[in-house]
Amino acid sequence: VTVPVTDGTALGRLREVLGEVSDLTRAAELLSWDQETYMPPGGVEDRAAQLSTLGRLAHERLTSAEVGGLLERAASEVDGLPADSDDASLVRVTRRDYDQAVRVPATLVAEMAGAAARARPVWQEAKARSDWSLFAPSMELTVDLSRRLAEALGYEERPYDALLSLEEPDVTTTRVEALFAEIRGAVVPLLRDIAASAGRVDASVLDRPLDEARQLSFALETIVALGYDLGRGRQDLSAHPFCTTFGPGDVRVTTRTGPTLGDSCLHSSIHEAGHAMYEQGIARSLDRTPLFNGASSGVHESQSRLWENLVGRGRPFLAWFHPRLAAAFPETLAGVDADGLWRALNVVRPSYIRVDADEVTYNFHVMLRFEIETALLEGRLAVADVPEAWAARVREYLGLEAPADREGPLQDIHWTFGLGHFVGYSLGNLISAQLMAAARVALADLDGDVAAGDFAPLLGWLRDQVHRHGRKLTPDALVERATGRPIEAGPWIAYVREKYAGLYGV
Amino acid sequence: VTVPVTDGTALGRLREVLGEVSDLTRAAELLSWDQETYMPPGGVEDRAAQLSTLGRLAHERLTSAEVGGLLERAASEVDGLPADSDDASLVRVTRRDYDQAVRVPATLVAEMAGAAARARPVWQEAKARSDWSLFAPSMELTVDLSRRLAEALGYEERPYDALLSLEEPDVTTTRVEALFAEIRGAVVPLLRDIAASAGRVDASVLDRPLDEARQLSFALETIVALGYDLGRGRQDLSAHPFCTTFGPGDVRVTTRTGPTLGDSCLHSSIHEAGHAMYEQGIARSLDRTPLFNGASSGVHESQSRLWENLVGRGRPFLAWFHPRLAAAFPETLAGVDADGLWRALNVVRPSYIRVDADEVTYNFHVMLRFEIETALLEGRLAVADVPEAWAARVREYLGLEAPADREGPLQDIHWTFGLGHFVGYSLGNLISAQLMAAARVALADLDGDVAAGDFAPLLGWLRDQVHRHGRKLTPDALVERATGRPIEAGPWIAYVREKYAGLYGV
Repeated sequence: VTVPVTDGTALGRLREVLGEVSDLTRAAELLSWDQETYMPPGGVEDRAAQLSTLGRLAHERLTSAEVGGLLERAASEVDGLPADSDDASLVRVTRRDYDQAVRVPATLVAEMAGAAARARPVWQEAKARSDWSLFAPSMELTVDLSRRLAEALGYEERPYDALLSLEEPDVTTTRVEALFAEIRGAVVPLLRDIAASAGRVDASVLDRPLDEARQLSFALETIVALGYDLGRGRQDLSAHPFCTTFGPGDVRVTTRTGPTLGDSCLHSSIHEAGHAMYEQGIARSLDRTPLFNGASSGVHESQSRLWENLVGRGRPFLAWFHPRLAAAFPETLAGVDADGLWRALNVVRPSYIRVDADEVTYNFHVMLRFEIETALLEGRLAVADVPEAWAARVREYLGLEAPADREGPLQDIHWTFGLGHFVGYSLGNLISAQLMAAARVALADLDGDVAAGDFAPLLGWLRDQVHRHGRKLTPDALVERATGRPIEAGPWIAYVREKYAGLYGV
Repeated sequence: VTVPVTDGTALGRLREVLGEVSDLTRAAELLSWDQETYMPPGGVEDRAAQLSTLGRLAHERLTSAEVGGLLERAASEVDGLPADSDDASLVRVTRRDYDQAVRVPATLVAEMAGAAARARPVWQEAKARSDWSLFAPSMELTVDLSRRLAEALGYEERPYDALLSLEEPDVTTTRVEALFAEIRGAVVPLLRDIAASAGRVDASVLDRPLDEARQLSFALETIVALGYDLGRGRQDLSAHPFCTTFGPGDVRVTTRTGPTLGDSCLHSSIHEAGHAMYEQGIARSLDRTPLFNGASSGVHESQSRLWENLVGRGRPFLAWFHPRLAAAFPETLAGVDADGLWRALNVVRPSYIRVDADEVTYNFHVMLRFEIETALLEGRLAVADVPEAWAARVREYLGLEAPADREGPLQDIHWTFGLGHFVGYSLGNLISAQLMAAARVALADLDGDVAAGDFAPLLGWLRDQVHRHGRKLTPDALVERATGRPIEAGPWIAYVREKYAGLYGV
């Protein structure tokens, strides 16, 4: 218990209130982390009440009249400061959050939370039975609530813009459509060529067993070598891997093991470590403010995908990684050299499941969800017709037959809580390639460093260009500052074309 | 996020607000649990801010004018209900908490929290150097703040009464003095007799090594056999064992292992399980209210001590426990039968350290702290003279020479955060003996059940007599209801006299 001490300025008092909001939010994050890692089954009911109370108090405090007044007064206090100063950024970004938050009625927020909680078991049941029609009523409500959320937030062109604005400032629906059209134009033919040369990559090593206890400690050693700071973090097990932050000194990852190299935690640990190194790199001066966060979902995902794929599935990385992996798991790696492992880790295999997708096909999974979501929101598609719309795109983009519902529109949990949460995954891929290309120019011998296991130059460049800024810069501003260009698809397309030409000779 | 829904009554709205206070408090408890078990070192600073915010918000909400008004109106709503009904109890107990909480200025609460945080490292340093004079300035502040707290709370006879009222309703300083006088009169001669027969107990088995990983799983198996429900709990490691509650479905214990049988976690796990089974047994109807807690620190400690000592170090328990322990650790137990183990586990060895004390000497450790605390608070003792006052009592009660400060007044952390926190440990001993005597009368064959590993009859009796009531009954009312007498020393004195007569032939 501390007595609030302010310096008499509106900004000082604003920082105090935002600090409390951050404390409440992070406490809720810890409760969620515990729920996913250690909570006994009996704890579910009270944990829900605790999360609800913390969420509501944080929302009430952020949207209070006091914060509105403080923002007005603080705006004049920071007038004249550089736009990228901590103080000016704090007022600007908090103003954006505040304006968005106050537009959404508390009753709608509560309705959405309640609907999500009720939809979750319905989705689990529908998925278990592989029957979209069981989930359809919940989905109708998700679409309806998303539409009402969009109307409450407001938008200029298209309702989906409003949903995007919550996670991806700078990005509109029309712009995403253009990015996806560009990706589709390049990757559909690439994928066709790869399919014709499928025999060139032997991925059978992925099916070999990998000791699960040892894979866990090996993954931890690996991410610590990349730069994840264990003095300010830890690794635990959970059903679905995630990264969560309770402060600059406590950024945790979770992971899960699987019985084979292909199911193992190795690359998902690297993925989560990418998120975690981002959070560990945000300037401490931004702590306990809305600026202490990633610039957007897409920028956050760029960090996880950069380490997982552009580093972790790259040929230079394998030069360092293969001998270590082979030393830890000699039986699994028997007869497979660095080059063979690199090929296997990059095998292209169109499949139904987004989270298992390779680099080439991954964006298609996002694209088809985005197309369905926008069509639903704009009334161009009925909920009952989602499986058909899904199947059509799976056929067109991935060349696969219609999946069962459990491997189709019921595979992800996202639609239990809303629309608009997938786009960041693809933006992350694009941004990761842009950043990697720029890092390659900035750093004298990036591939040599990585091959030697020296990740500090790359991490240092990302710290400087991305991490330390937190949410001070918008995604476009951040990417343009780092690479000279706003978010675009070209570098990612060039990257996959070059990489998979080498792998598949196409 | 949920929208508050009330039934229009003051009681309904009061339950809502108290539910929020409970949510905030339990969230803080989880943050503390995490801090003691899993938090990385870097998390300290932000965790302190989060705990401070949650504590302040809970306090603000409990002491709000709204709660004051609701309590007035709810009092008339429950008028006419039986005093032991949930609703009447809720209003009565919350009124007591509220009246106490509003009497303490927020500035004093904050000062105490700040002083405690600052005193902790000072105490660690002073203890490491075994130098009371380094801690004396912090102790002066502790005494001063406790005095101011007592004045704020108010009292009729003696300032220490006010401190006791926070944890031990029904118990006054004068009554504690009388209880201790009675204990002293009986146990000082008993201890003298035991010392003369010290050779009768061979405790050397306690010094044999005990595999630490195996002792942890064995302790867990043991407490589950006693009745601790793992579906609503878990066991983790921490530097100091504790029990903590996040709801009726999530009551956790922590423990720590040691290299020998004597240092092992076995009986400290049973101790914490005693606390945990209490919390797991509180009626679910009291959840998320101030009634969902132990009746007092003393009653809580009665449950831990009952299972640890009156059951766990009793001869019938050893009949069940010894074969299991011997099967799990055959080398450690080689040549030691159930009777020998029982004797070793009850060896009486006066020592400086409270937490290592045997049943006979334990109360002396509390007694001397209580005498020093009351003398400090009433100005009859100067902080500088504490080591001397301590040494005098160690000599008189335990027959030992003056200890080094680290093994004397610096051994416990309690004086970093206040006075008045030790008495419950002794009250717990007394109450545990009262309850066990009553259970022995109520249950047909308690010793036979325990010897057969059937703990359900005893646990069922405790559930009915103690656990389910939560804080609805005051300690005296609860003990009198269960045993026919208020809290008293006689049954405990009779218990130790009989047990140690058998052990030492005195």
